[in-house]
Amino acid sequence: MEENSVRNEISQLGKFSLIDRLTDKIKPVNESTIAGMNEDAAVADYQTHLSVTATRLFQENIDFDLTYFPLKHLGYKCASIVMTDVLAMNALPRQLSAVIAVSNRFSIEAVEELMTGLRACCHNYKTDLTFLDIRSSVTGLSVALTACGETENERLTRRTGAAENELICVSGDFGSAYTGLLILQREKKIFEATHNSQPDFEGYEYLLEKQLKPEPRLDIVEALRAQDIQPTAMTAVTEGIATSLFHLCMPATLGCTVYENKIPVDQLTFDTLRSMKIVATTVALNGGEDYELMFTIRQSDYEKVKKIENVSVIGYIGEKNGGRYLISNDNRQIELRAQGFGKNL
Amino acid sequence: MEENSVRNEISQLGKFSLIDRLTDKIKPVNESTIAGMNEDAAVADYQTHLSVTATRLFQENIDFDLTYFPLKHLGYKCASIVMTDVLAMNALPRQLSAVIAVSNRFSIEAVEELMTGLRACCHNYKTDLTFLDIRSSVTGLSVALTACGETENERLTRRTGAAENELICVSGDFGSAYTGLLILQREKKIFEATHNSQPDFEGYEYLLEKQLKPEPRLDIVEALRAQDIQPTAMTAVTEGIATSLFHLCMPATLGCTVYENKIPVDQLTFDTLRSMKIVATTVALNGGEDYELMFTIRQSDYEKVKKIENVSVIGYIGEKNGGRYLISNDNRQIELRAQGFGKNL
Repeated sequence: MEENSVRNEISQLGKFSLIDRLTDKIKPVNESTIAGMNEDAAVADYQTHLSVTATRLFQENIDFDLTYFPLKHLGYKCASIVMTDVLAMNALPRQLSAVIAVSNRFSIEAVEELMTGLRACCHNYKTDLTFLDIRSSVTGLSVALTACGETENERLTRRTGAAENELICVSGDFGSAYTGLLILQREKKIFEATHNSQPDFEGYEYLLEKQLKPEPRLDIVEALRAQDIQPTAMTAVTEGIATSLFHLCMPATLGCTVYENKIPVDQLTFDTLRSMKIVATTVALNGGEDYELMFTIRQSDYEKVKKIENVSVIGYIGEKNGGRYLISNDNRQIELRAQGFGKNL
Repeated sequence: MEENSVRNEISQLGKFSLIDRLTDKIKPVNESTIAGMNEDAAVADYQTHLSVTATRLFQENIDFDLTYFPLKHLGYKCASIVMTDVLAMNALPRQLSAVIAVSNRFSIEAVEELMTGLRACCHNYKTDLTFLDIRSSVTGLSVALTACGETENERLTRRTGAAENELICVSGDFGSAYTGLLILQREKKIFEATHNSQPDFEGYEYLLEKQLKPEPRLDIVEALRAQDIQPTAMTAVTEGIATSLFHLCMPATLGCTVYENKIPVDQLTFDTLRSMKIVATTVALNGGEDYELMFTIRQSDYEKVKKIENVSVIGYIGEKNGGRYLISNDNRQIELRAQGFGKNL
């Protein structure tokens, strides 16, 4: 788990000294950041803008497996995911609060690794870490993150708001993070069986990066502003395209149609899944962990959205009480199901 | 753990139906509440006010023991604590986001119990529940809460800001919650030994209420406004008076003096602790879980603060680099130590 050979116990340092060490040299970069570190709560001044707050809880052996997940990447990924929730409201992330719970299995160096990744993501996306607490845990690692951001009243984009005939757009490509997870799990099994094998990840770098270090799509939210496009509805794609489609369509009981051949899937992802006898479209629809954005736009914005890199139009919103369909490559109309609305938590 | 004899599995309902059920009939009461439920993030409009965000993570067998902690009380207490963090910035709580992680040990009814308590605290303190997610957990129960609130720029009160000769004030009384915990732990031990004993809590109701159902001190923050008192520094008292004194004094390396005979301790708490051969002052200084407010005021505000019920002046801020002392009832000068700054997380 830790490559570093030095191991110092958290109990040697004490909670407040550890927090001071982990938040050393933090200088706010956002004007809106007023206070937080070493306070009871984080404070921001969004002036006339709306305040947007996203909260996530990440737990060991539920949301991540530390046998193949480096702590630095984990910190980066957790920060990225909660920032994505803010972006999915068409808002800009500005501040991040973190509570990290660790058992005595974790050394100071382990917590530092995690925080290095978290702070790297904050740095890359100009978000200030404004609050940190470290707590005990019985066994595993838990990370509770809250991202705060701001948006103008007229830019705020909810899950509701889509209307018939509007275009459904997504950022990035789908299924790569899930495929990266399958690769990691495969290598873990080989390691558990042989105990001497070095994991073989050559050629899979893109998939592993999508799994271990997803990037929040600040570029897309900024590009929408640059193109003066106001999406009518938006959400993050965290549990596959199908669940996100349902989030956008369900509140107004709208139908939708998406085209299999429009769903962006990376070639390496497609080939790797095929070698595992898995259909890429199934993974894109129901796999999860893409952390891309899905949004709807008016047809009149089509020419403008085409100018944005890494955005694909995958279909359109249907009529009220209409069906929700995938048009397959062989032109069949397949009814969509959303896994997230099923039995699983 | 559950008195209710009906037990329905969460897997029967599915995540989104469960969330809908748990957030049924929620109507925002604050003008600032813009969106949240069934969105990627919570949205608030504080107009020209500052946004204040507090985050807490509560974990089973670290922060609470469900063998004697009813889930309804737990929900209430968790909400109360995170609202207290907002109040401790001299801000008013307005919105609450919750992520609850449960293993299959927990039924729908168990999660409903927890949410009933959480929603009761929101209701009592006019705070809108604006976001809820339910997640899986390996074994226990985890609750991650984020409270958002607002304050005017000129009212924001940090931990830093106290100056020499200012008065140190606290709300409520101290040691009762900790004593309540001792009573609960004692009855748990008796139960574990005999397995047929009914817990005997008669006469201890006040202590149990302070432990199981602490109230956020919105009354104090409102009273300070009514009296037109601007505290110079403020913090929540979560780990005993000593740690909070250090939070207020350390940043500017100020000294302080507090008087044992000024520290408010309830008579029942005092008597119960004495019967256990525990010194009440030690518990008040280092016990924790009081969730009261500590703040400093200018001497000129003394007459005004006297008019506020449930506020005690316990001492004063000393000179820079001065010592931090307790003057005992027998007039000895005892150097204060802050447990929270020690080895424990």
